[in-house]
Amino acid sequence: MTRLFADPSRFSEDQLRGFAAAYSEHVTRVPGGVVRTRPLRPGQVAVVVGGGSGHYPAFSGLVGSGLAAGAVVGNIFTSPSSRQAESVARAADAGGGVLYCFGNYAGDRMNFGMAQARLRDAGIDTRTVLVTDDVASAPAERSGERRGIAGDFTVFKVAGAAAEEGLGLDAVEAAARHANAATYSFGIAFAGCTMPGADAPLFTVPDGKMAIGLGIHGEPGVEDADMADAPAIARILVDRLLAERPATAGTRVAAILNGLGATKYEELFLLWGHVAEALAAAGLTVVRPEVGELVTSLDMAACSLTLMWLDEDLERWWCAPADAPGFRRLPLPEAPAQPRALPEAVLEAQVAAGDESSRGAAATVLAALRALQAALHDAAAELGRIDAVAGDGDHGRGMTKGVDAAVRAAERAGSRGAGARSLLSAAADAWADEAGGTSGVLWGVGLRALAQELGDTGPVDGVRVAAGARAALDAVTSLGGAKPGDKTLVDALAPLVDAFTAGVGRREDPVAAFELASAEASAAAESTAALTPRLGRARPLAERSVGTPDAGALSLALCARTVAGLFAK
Amino acid sequence: MTRLFADPSRFSEDQLRGFAAAYSEHVTRVPGGVVRTRPLRPGQVAVVVGGGSGHYPAFSGLVGSGLAAGAVVGNIFTSPSSRQAESVARAADAGGGVLYCFGNYAGDRMNFGMAQARLRDAGIDTRTVLVTDDVASAPAERSGERRGIAGDFTVFKVAGAAAEEGLGLDAVEAAARHANAATYSFGIAFAGCTMPGADAPLFTVPDGKMAIGLGIHGEPGVEDADMADAPAIARILVDRLLAERPATAGTRVAAILNGLGATKYEELFLLWGHVAEALAAAGLTVVRPEVGELVTSLDMAACSLTLMWLDEDLERWWCAPADAPGFRRLPLPEAPAQPRALPEAVLEAQVAAGDESSRGAAATVLAALRALQAALHDAAAELGRIDAVAGDGDHGRGMTKGVDAAVRAAERAGSRGAGARSLLSAAADAWADEAGGTSGVLWGVGLRALAQELGDTGPVDGVRVAAGARAALDAVTSLGGAKPGDKTLVDALAPLVDAFTAGVGRREDPVAAFELASAEASAAAESTAALTPRLGRARPLAERSVGTPDAGALSLALCARTVAGLFAK
Repeated sequence: MTRLFADPSRFSEDQLRGFAAAYSEHVTRVPGGVVRTRPLRPGQVAVVVGGGSGHYPAFSGLVGSGLAAGAVVGNIFTSPSSRQAESVARAADAGGGVLYCFGNYAGDRMNFGMAQARLRDAGIDTRTVLVTDDVASAPAERSGERRGIAGDFTVFKVAGAAAEEGLGLDAVEAAARHANAATYSFGIAFAGCTMPGADAPLFTVPDGKMAIGLGIHGEPGVEDADMADAPAIARILVDRLLAERPATAGTRVAAILNGLGATKYEELFLLWGHVAEALAAAGLTVVRPEVGELVTSLDMAACSLTLMWLDEDLERWWCAPADAPGFRRLPLPEAPAQPRALPEAVLEAQVAAGDESSRGAAATVLAALRALQAALHDAAAELGRIDAVAGDGDHGRGMTKGVDAAVRAAERAGSRGAGARSLLSAAADAWADEAGGTSGVLWGVGLRALAQELGDTGPVDGVRVAAGARAALDAVTSLGGAKPGDKTLVDALAPLVDAFTAGVGRREDPVAAFELASAEASAAAESTAALTPRLGRARPLAERSVGTPDAGALSLALCARTVAGLFAK
Repeated sequence: MTRLFADPSRFSEDQLRGFAAAYSEHVTRVPGGVVRTRPLRPGQVAVVVGGGSGHYPAFSGLVGSGLAAGAVVGNIFTSPSSRQAESVARAADAGGGVLYCFGNYAGDRMNFGMAQARLRDAGIDTRTVLVTDDVASAPAERSGERRGIAGDFTVFKVAGAAAEEGLGLDAVEAAARHANAATYSFGIAFAGCTMPGADAPLFTVPDGKMAIGLGIHGEPGVEDADMADAPAIARILVDRLLAERPATAGTRVAAILNGLGATKYEELFLLWGHVAEALAAAGLTVVRPEVGELVTSLDMAACSLTLMWLDEDLERWWCAPADAPGFRRLPLPEAPAQPRALPEAVLEAQVAAGDESSRGAAATVLAALRALQAALHDAAAELGRIDAVAGDGDHGRGMTKGVDAAVRAAERAGSRGAGARSLLSAAADAWADEAGGTSGVLWGVGLRALAQELGDTGPVDGVRVAAGARAALDAVTSLGGAKPGDKTLVDALAPLVDAFTAGVGRREDPVAAFELASAEASAAAESTAALTPRLGRARPLAERSVGTPDAGALSLALCARTVAGLFAK
């Protein structure tokens, strides 16, 4: 959804005004678009790119040293007029002639074509190279009819670098044509973009589907396919491009994994991991890949893969420095970096062996952890739902990640003969490490404090557990700073500890005392959680941002009940 | 919606793997996160940032020269563990000590705090500066409780630049603390983000509303307000920050207009235009603003404004070069640029005065253009709807922009005594210029060809109009390359011209002949448009991308009917 505008019919002009204000050191507005603020060297070829707006950083963001000399900026997804194209070229021209470079669309061809004729009439040598990288838009035998999508960028980059090198117009045109012939793209869309002022996207993709062969102007895909996971999508993208590997291609490629707007960086990086593997498996070396947003389509959810098959010239131009508002590439330092080898397990904890009775207690602790693991996995979705009321909905996932790691660590420690203290300490640290977050560190310090009281020698009795429970409560409140009533896990932990300590103090059966205490913890947690809907958004932000308050109390109570149930058996 | 992943519970690790592969020249993975591939100078302070993932380029993308030495990377929206924080700091430390710098969240405070204690125990001097820029999250008198949002970036930037200058740990810590005290942010959200594997966003904003006071972890806003346009949103953001202008503040500010993910560049630029005006009106000078995505929240639709009140030190550190995967700042050239003055109206057409009868014909042409203007505005929404079936839905907007500009130009030409040819030529050029796109240039060349036959002297009769209509058809088919049946406006224009020419050739009344011809054009356009739903997505992409085929025929027929109706009166 495109929401920020004043008058939708003036969106393109208004955004260009703000863009030029933000980047006045780099670009200057002229009628029809922008040119570099610092003029070209006399006689340098002016590479002028352009097309409709809605594709930032294409096209205005790609004006700068080593890239374009100017960009013609049309309305959203609409070719600029021939007058605009002519005006920007005249402003960008430094006496070396003009290379128009843009994606292959009928409107752009006509408007830039008319401008080229007028410039030539005026004695300004002008050439045009169309970008035709989208393999989905026409079969290979009609590759000249293909559209330009993210491959616009590789072709602009090469043309801009060649012009910056001081080549003449013939050579810059040839470089761009060569780059286009070596550039292939293929994309997949998940959701359409919405024009300013419109209340619905230009197209929708059915639930559970993805659209193969995207366009960058809100065109639907060529066909729908079932939604796939990242490794499968990587294979689809790579296979389709390798199927058109040119006969003359070497083994070095430039690559762009382009996001169209709402498919975000982390998703693109995750996908890149799989794309890079597939390219390496095909024997290819990727040179300075770009993973990010280079040719967008407003807020479209989609991605595309572009490969440019490199030779020596193309690799030099691809790697050349550039400084534009939307793309900056710095030269790499001369000396290659020395990768530092860092052991993965540098911080693995030591395990002290326990005596026989403590090893028996350690087995009981492990059994309890496994019971927690089962209970937390069962409850994960519900805990997430509760957490989402006031937090970010990840409490269930954090707890299962933590307990899974704790069980694994406890099993490793147990297999090395750990006593109760060492086994639970290892579990506590693993829980904190793997879960992260607020609840992870609180469970980590709490379980670690409990572990200290269990010892690695001798049996574990109710007194030791009660002391450990008290130590855990102290550690959690000391680290987290929460008091009962702050709607954190302390709301359940404090009554649990108090009731259990009292029961043990009265010399009750520890199992019965714990069962009673866990019931009190549950009641307290339920009453804490019951407040949530009423408080809702009125709660101060500072409180809301402190982890996972209500879900934390509920999950602690659940764990207490689970352990009580295990021992009651 | 976050869609690209394999196992949602491993999203953070998987995306980090791909990130490090893409930017291996810049960053190297270590347990817990990433550090620079090229180590610090011996004794340089290591600025270590971090937090949950989901905020790219924060935090891993901000590792590089002039910025962070390392980033600790937790699960999505979840603090990394203390072990992770310790591990990254140990890998980043170059003997100059460690400055931890991160947003003020309970989980991060606890985990980084435990790591800091362990590092100090190990003899590594370690400090922590919390970022507390979000004015919405706590009142000014409790500013220490505020959360860190996009102001993370200004504080990291200052700390990184101070460390790069070679300052010691005390001075780098003081610089970061100073930057945080000078940094204020405020944001507005339009739609929540969706966690990997979830099928609903973490929060929703009611239709027609916006959420004031956003968080960056999917927290809902502090309150809802009615959705506003960009100028009003700019005022809300600026006013809220100026209300907390520090007593010591000067008139120079660094600024970030940050997009959270799905609020895209063009929207941010448009908003920046209004923000920059408001800041200038308050007497402030903005130094090297950043408009883009620096601290995101997956695919959340939202924006925030950050101001850092500059003094000499902060301005130097803010402007200092940096080279990280997600942020690169180059030094500005020494010599300031020479802005080039370019006249806005450099290309305004000449108007030849007509004789009296041609001026009369010109008045008729103007009346016809005004009738078209009214008819096209009435039909704009419907034309857009039809166009969206196969194109990008902008045909109605393009036609109204074109005809509005044509009427304005014709009025100007008419007021200067233009004959029919000059008046219509001026209108044709203005139509093409303002509308842009395929239909704009085709209407421009068509009307211009028609104009040539009308002349600036003598009356305009049926023979001249018929010759002009034929010339228009020739110009359109010659430029666009379309034949009848290609589902373009030629499908309506060709029968119009043929029928009218035939009628005039039979010496029929030109008005009656044109009325009949326009009816034939309408019938042809309707039959062309009727094919659209059936062809739908099966049409080749190359055709679909050629402008606005079916809607183009319909709008041409509409114009013909309108003109016929005008003359029949």
